[in-house]
Amino acid sequence: MQLLGKNYIAGARSGEGERRVYSYDAGTGEQLPYDFCQATPGEVDDAARAAGACYPVYRALPAARRADFLDAIANELDAFGDDFISLVSRETALPAVRIAGERGRTSNQMRLFAKVLRRGDFYGARIDTAILDRKPMPRVDMRQCKMGVGPVAVFGASNFPLAFSTAGGDTAAALAAGCPVVFKAHSGHMATAECVADAIIRAAEKTGMPKGVFNMIYGSGVGEALVKHPAIQAVGFTGSLKGGRALCDMAAARPQPIPVFAEMSSVNPVLVLPEALKQRGELVANELATSVVTGCGQFCTNPGLVVGIRSPEFSAFLASLASIMADQPAQTMLNTGTLKSYEKGLAALHAHSGIKHLAGQAQAGNQARPQLFQADVSLLLDGDKLLQEEVFGPATVVVEVADKAQLVQALLGLHGQLTATLIAEPADINAFGDLVPVLEQKAGRLLLNGYPTGVEVCDAMVHGGPYPATSDARGTSVGTLAIDRFLRPVCYQNYPDGLLPEPLKDANPLGIRRLVNGEMTTDAV
Amino acid sequence: MQLLGKNYIAGARSGEGERRVYSYDAGTGEQLPYDFCQATPGEVDDAARAAGACYPVYRALPAARRADFLDAIANELDAFGDDFISLVSRETALPAVRIAGERGRTSNQMRLFAKVLRRGDFYGARIDTAILDRKPMPRVDMRQCKMGVGPVAVFGASNFPLAFSTAGGDTAAALAAGCPVVFKAHSGHMATAECVADAIIRAAEKTGMPKGVFNMIYGSGVGEALVKHPAIQAVGFTGSLKGGRALCDMAAARPQPIPVFAEMSSVNPVLVLPEALKQRGELVANELATSVVTGCGQFCTNPGLVVGIRSPEFSAFLASLASIMADQPAQTMLNTGTLKSYEKGLAALHAHSGIKHLAGQAQAGNQARPQLFQADVSLLLDGDKLLQEEVFGPATVVVEVADKAQLVQALLGLHGQLTATLIAEPADINAFGDLVPVLEQKAGRLLLNGYPTGVEVCDAMVHGGPYPATSDARGTSVGTLAIDRFLRPVCYQNYPDGLLPEPLKDANPLGIRRLVNGEMTTDAV
Repeated sequence: MQLLGKNYIAGARSGEGERRVYSYDAGTGEQLPYDFCQATPGEVDDAARAAGACYPVYRALPAARRADFLDAIANELDAFGDDFISLVSRETALPAVRIAGERGRTSNQMRLFAKVLRRGDFYGARIDTAILDRKPMPRVDMRQCKMGVGPVAVFGASNFPLAFSTAGGDTAAALAAGCPVVFKAHSGHMATAECVADAIIRAAEKTGMPKGVFNMIYGSGVGEALVKHPAIQAVGFTGSLKGGRALCDMAAARPQPIPVFAEMSSVNPVLVLPEALKQRGELVANELATSVVTGCGQFCTNPGLVVGIRSPEFSAFLASLASIMADQPAQTMLNTGTLKSYEKGLAALHAHSGIKHLAGQAQAGNQARPQLFQADVSLLLDGDKLLQEEVFGPATVVVEVADKAQLVQALLGLHGQLTATLIAEPADINAFGDLVPVLEQKAGRLLLNGYPTGVEVCDAMVHGGPYPATSDARGTSVGTLAIDRFLRPVCYQNYPDGLLPEPLKDANPLGIRRLVNGEMTTDAV
Repeated sequence: MQLLGKNYIAGARSGEGERRVYSYDAGTGEQLPYDFCQATPGEVDDAARAAGACYPVYRALPAARRADFLDAIANELDAFGDDFISLVSRETALPAVRIAGERGRTSNQMRLFAKVLRRGDFYGARIDTAILDRKPMPRVDMRQCKMGVGPVAVFGASNFPLAFSTAGGDTAAALAAGCPVVFKAHSGHMATAECVADAIIRAAEKTGMPKGVFNMIYGSGVGEALVKHPAIQAVGFTGSLKGGRALCDMAAARPQPIPVFAEMSSVNPVLVLPEALKQRGELVANELATSVVTGCGQFCTNPGLVVGIRSPEFSAFLASLASIMADQPAQTMLNTGTLKSYEKGLAALHAHSGIKHLAGQAQAGNQARPQLFQADVSLLLDGDKLLQEEVFGPATVVVEVADKAQLVQALLGLHGQLTATLIAEPADINAFGDLVPVLEQKAGRLLLNGYPTGVEVCDAMVHGGPYPATSDARGTSVGTLAIDRFLRPVCYQNYPDGLLPEPLKDANPLGIRRLVNGEMTTDAV
């Protein structure tokens, strides 16, 4: 595979700096035969300016044109061959079948946003027509619709080299909203990023998009200048709490603060309820272990906390879970940094006097070994930080509570989460249904009898939640509502039809649903 | 009028501290015979906790119950007698007719949000039903709707003692969203705040709302503790850039950052275009002067910047405007702080070598004298701070540009605005219609042949805009979209009908519009 390793700025390639950064084989640690030009401060500036210059042109395109662009990106992604899959696999140690699946998810995500653009409700069109005879003052014609906020900086995730990276959910949502993107390539899969960026550029050229609609920079430490750049108007990020919070703080301290949508840290509590344990404790233990170790536990939605009420069934479940977890093989992580971080997380759990190790071989070597811990409930009740922070990898912590009242207290002590899961039979739902309002306050997605590691890309998905799961609980980074993060409303007062944007014209030329004088309709005004 | 002057906490009154703060007659500066208990740190904590304790109960109420509460508040406001009007007038120096009008606006605003609650689209209900035979993986049932984010701290505005204060737009939007409120009474109209808080509490009692749904604290410097309180989940603010930015910075630095919706500073550019000046320059000068001096210029949307292209007509317009402005009488401002700030703003304009004074008597005495200035276009082109900052009061600055190209450059140099106005004839629209995309980037509301000082409360209104007009261009603080600021989405995966919230149940018991499998419908699932 031929890679140039240069930054993507305004549709051209640029490698002005001396410094090179490298990609590695995640399995062997071997350096791959590609080098990438660390973006210079001038190149970061150029990339942000290119997005800024493109913005008025790109956002003025009909939404249907942007939809064609997204569809074209999807087609380019689908056209990748096996060499691409094996490259991604090599950079991330993720198996080929997973990469192929993730590619489908990524192209489907693009197509779903294209549908949103064609459906047109993202405009949020609202029309209040004039009431000239109103007393004491006439009402003039007022119309509102949404437009893109401006250039968006996107930081991809280590763990989803496709679906949360270069052409991932944040990029798709921003491009759909009419916002040009500057993507910071993740250091863990820069070769992958280059292939995908090429695909986006090909799609942009084929569909006649303005130059600068998608830009990409390589390098470490270049993100700070990007987030601080005046042209950038919003940020999408998926990664660690530390990294995400640092970006939030930078964005908030700008002369003009901008919103940051950071998806960061979640322990994704799973509540295993009594009747479910009675009827299928062994099955739940198996399913849960699978969810914990799948993909080497490297999912934002990995179940890192399992809570149950003291009972013989819970003890039996724990014993099963321990025995299953003990049998799970070691796996290669995304990169050595991830492994180091996993080792550090495990060490902290081992070192805590309120936590005991239930299963798992001593962590050693260059692979991650699955682990099961049990923490005393007091850690949750007292808000111990250790149980609030995600240990990224194939480990989970079980907590036994005395009764339902203590379960509620423990849940109230939790920080914000991406997900909260109930494993429950109908009898459990009767007895514990009143937990749901507590879970609603804590998480963005509530599951029943499922496991949080699958994140469906659809209209109803929320991949978000209260801090520190994300930096803004009002957003989602998966599903079509993600576009809302990058839109702002504009109101037109007393504008003639000819001067109004398409979604607001009298005749409703786009045929979209609009709120007209308080009634939703597709009719002309 | 009998006032207790105590803080409102969980439906009761509390005055634990020693310190008292006072209200003044805005016209005479005389202290009014009421004293108000500065909230102690303990009382601030109690108020925030009361809102926090109320939140799960209040948000669980059917939206129709919250609508009844808002309607009841509206009725209480409408029932106020002339003594109330004269009290507000005394505290703010705003004329009785304006206060009466503002009261109607405030109660109508409550009723409009009640309608939103009954209409139900604020839920944003989305349903993706299960596809059990999908390959390679089945899709499980996913449903999403929005709920209130949690307790909201609201800071009222000096200039709208009713519509942007105790029972104003932010309070209405938060209460509609299901969020209990802690309101910080504005020091400029604490007696008014007490009357309105009593009205809200009466309405809460009549409609059976849980205690703590509305709390209010008095005092200076108590806002910081409120914004930093862990129970508070969002902030609404209307006021100065300095004050709003300070709250934003505090909120961003919390262990758990929270969103702040601050409506701050806007100079509301008005572009007077050539053909309009030719046909009705004198009329425009009159209308514009009226917009500048109405309410002593104390509107967020006051036109503080007037831009036109050099021509004999523009010179004639300027001469008219100067002569009209010179004739405008002095007016009493909201309070002495506002007058001081106006004097300071004028002094800065007078002191700048690029700005000349065109009309207005020398500022002196205890009333504000209307003023007209002209600034050299270089100040806009070079981004001089002075032209970007609102001078709150009856003053405006005119800028003459050489031609259309310079007009565009001047506009691009502007910071974010609440409004941008075109005064234009059809011929102007033909010649200058391509300014609209520039204005869209700069402002939340674009007006044609109107003046920005009237802000209609309706579905289509946007009272927002890029920084520093507001802290978050994605929000509006007037109109029904304001509710969105205080809502977040929650997703339910594989939940049985009995466990789902009303808006998501199969039968659609609320009869609301929902996005079901990509189609908007009111049908049952």
